[in-house]
Amino acid sequence: MKGLVHETEGWIRSVRSQKEVLFLHVNDGSSLESLQVVADSSFDSRELAFGSSVEVQGQLVKSPSKKQNVELKAEKIEVVGSCDAKAFPFKYKERHPLEYLRQYPHLRCRTNVLGSVLRVRSEATAAIHSFFKPSSKIKVPEKNFFNIPVFLTVSGQLHLEVMSGAFTQVFTFGPTFRAENSQSRRHLAEFYMVEAEISFLESLQDLMQVMESLFKTTAMTVLSNCPKDVELCHKFLAPGQKDRLEHMLKNNFLIISYTEAVEILKQASQNFTFTPEWGADLHTEHEKYLVKHCGDIPVFVINYPLVLKPFYMRDNEDGPQHTVAAVDLLVPGVGELFGGSLREERYHLLEQRLARLGLTEAYQWYLDLRRFGSVPHGGFGMGFERYLQCILGIDNIKDVIPFPRFTHSCLL
Amino acid sequence: MKGLVHETEGWIRSVRSQKEVLFLHVNDGSSLESLQVVADSSFDSRELAFGSSVEVQGQLVKSPSKKQNVELKAEKIEVVGSCDAKAFPFKYKERHPLEYLRQYPHLRCRTNVLGSVLRVRSEATAAIHSFFKPSSKIKVPEKNFFNIPVFLTVSGQLHLEVMSGAFTQVFTFGPTFRAENSQSRRHLAEFYMVEAEISFLESLQDLMQVMESLFKTTAMTVLSNCPKDVELCHKFLAPGQKDRLEHMLKNNFLIISYTEAVEILKQASQNFTFTPEWGADLHTEHEKYLVKHCGDIPVFVINYPLVLKPFYMRDNEDGPQHTVAAVDLLVPGVGELFGGSLREERYHLLEQRLARLGLTEAYQWYLDLRRFGSVPHGGFGMGFERYLQCILGIDNIKDVIPFPRFTHSCLL
Repeated sequence: MKGLVHETEGWIRSVRSQKEVLFLHVNDGSSLESLQVVADSSFDSRELAFGSSVEVQGQLVKSPSKKQNVELKAEKIEVVGSCDAKAFPFKYKERHPLEYLRQYPHLRCRTNVLGSVLRVRSEATAAIHSFFKPSSKIKVPEKNFFNIPVFLTVSGQLHLEVMSGAFTQVFTFGPTFRAENSQSRRHLAEFYMVEAEISFLESLQDLMQVMESLFKTTAMTVLSNCPKDVELCHKFLAPGQKDRLEHMLKNNFLIISYTEAVEILKQASQNFTFTPEWGADLHTEHEKYLVKHCGDIPVFVINYPLVLKPFYMRDNEDGPQHTVAAVDLLVPGVGELFGGSLREERYHLLEQRLARLGLTEAYQWYLDLRRFGSVPHGGFGMGFERYLQCILGIDNIKDVIPFPRFTHSCLL
Repeated sequence: MKGLVHETEGWIRSVRSQKEVLFLHVNDGSSLESLQVVADSSFDSRELAFGSSVEVQGQLVKSPSKKQNVELKAEKIEVVGSCDAKAFPFKYKERHPLEYLRQYPHLRCRTNVLGSVLRVRSEATAAIHSFFKPSSKIKVPEKNFFNIPVFLTVSGQLHLEVMSGAFTQVFTFGPTFRAENSQSRRHLAEFYMVEAEISFLESLQDLMQVMESLFKTTAMTVLSNCPKDVELCHKFLAPGQKDRLEHMLKNNFLIISYTEAVEILKQASQNFTFTPEWGADLHTEHEKYLVKHCGDIPVFVINYPLVLKPFYMRDNEDGPQHTVAAVDLLVPGVGELFGGSLREERYHLLEQRLARLGLTEAYQWYLDLRRFGSVPHGGFGMGFERYLQCILGIDNIKDVIPFPRFTHSCLL
């Protein structure tokens, strides 16, 4: 059978010599699978080393092996850039721990595992964009799920509120910076956040529906578009994660109130470092317990004490335990993944709260939004790296971002 | 004819009363067109004022007017948030200058013109993502135009080079910060940049093809997906821009060398503030002249003096006028829109240049990329706001970004 003339470029991932034949796996980063290149003994195997970049010309033929459909019978192999194997920090056929790879932010994307993680990151990014901006055109004004402009603008919910006051439904997706002095597995000084704001939205139920749908739609898209990359992570980094993810996707997320959450924690047999009490923040240990208690399904906690939350969250006007219409989504393994709320759209209530905080002058512009055609609205933010941790089961947040920046560390 | 029961939400853009009937235009931001709402005299027109937010229920019927296909016969109108007309900075039926609107960053997206600009911005953002990441799936390794992961990562060409060393073709699109002390119409302290990096790319010609294609594909998508918004900008803000844009899109972009550019400038009848000279930077006045000289078509200027450009650009090893393989794209009205180059992939040449600059230690990681399977590669960056200025004909960069930040100004 005559093959197709084909040219490929990439980096050598493995070299195997067998009788008179040399097998190379050449990877160009577009997928986990490498192309098998078959070369006869006329090629010098010393030059064709692990890590080198090559250009290969030859015939694309059906492979006799079951491992791949096609292989490339090499006619010409050019070593574009050789690889100094002794100095190269990754060794052929060795599986290096993620902590080790982290020391080489400029090279680690050449490994299978980081390649897979970053392809998943890419796919999830695209899926989130598609979720918010479907491609269909609207002719007659009608209720679409999210028929909105994309604003890759400065992160910040207050700014999104400005835009939602004209465009009804808006989102943003970009880097966010926090000077948190934390060395945890869940914090970065620079992380990516998806934020959405929806006008004419009046209940937390409607908001939670969008959050759950964003979580599930994105995960389904990633699973369907890069199954091999997800499989690699699940298999080698997080055994059991495949089942845990399926469990999350097929069940409805749960909803409990903050007050119920505190009751659950109080009745727990477990001893907490921080004693659960109405009016106090939920800590990581509490979040973990709640998720476990709810059967390892993501759980929305709603209606938090007013005193714990920022001024812009909508007053539930209840009592004596005074709450606001806030919502956090807690997920297995990661804890808090989303935070959101209805926003206070009533001028006088917002004015009173700002006055009490001495912020009236600084937020005059924000009050203005309630003077000129105010509408009920709400929104949320989702930490993108935590989302990737959650679906892939990756323990450390530093392994799901190309160049992690955190306290006292900015290698690149 | 019985209409469809329909509910709409939005902000009142106009109110017109005619005999016994009230005509409202209600806009929800999804397009320039508002929905015409027809209400009988039982509704109180004083409440239904310009700027107020409303929820309207009624029958969607064919409109007797030619101005719109359908209109909404109101059965119920609820004023969700009234608008304090006296204090509202925008007056009904008045066209406010862009400079005036700029004073109200929290409200200006409620105007037709900013609405249109920001919808175009959104559409261009989506088009750029689609350009780099087509949705088709790859089964057999083959030459795709840009089959690459999306990396919404920290802007920075050197980091993209790291990624291109594993994924072959990568791009990033996000905010970039410059502490430039400039009050010009073309500079912002925070702007958005599209950057791409392509491995196994060996000529500026190939790079320029991607740049030209990105420019044209994005513009065609925007023109096709939001014609009314583009039309509004062209009509009211930049008369003649429609023809100028068509002229740019239907012609091949020109290519001249830096050396040719300097010759053209030297032979110009015009007097420049900065005398054109080989080895000196091109200034705005020079860029403008060159574009005009080339018939108002975008023009690539290539092969700049080595001394003018950063260390990573590929040495052309020519002489005595020593150049590097750099390319800038100059466009009518805006000047420099893209900057790019081939990168120095040869270890020894890069090492020498870093040593001469005393940067060897700081850039050891960057040198490493040339030790372990180096490949020829190149890339470019495009200022997104300048691109929007260029296609819409908008004079001031502050009007194509939701919240402009520039020297001594960060209103929001």
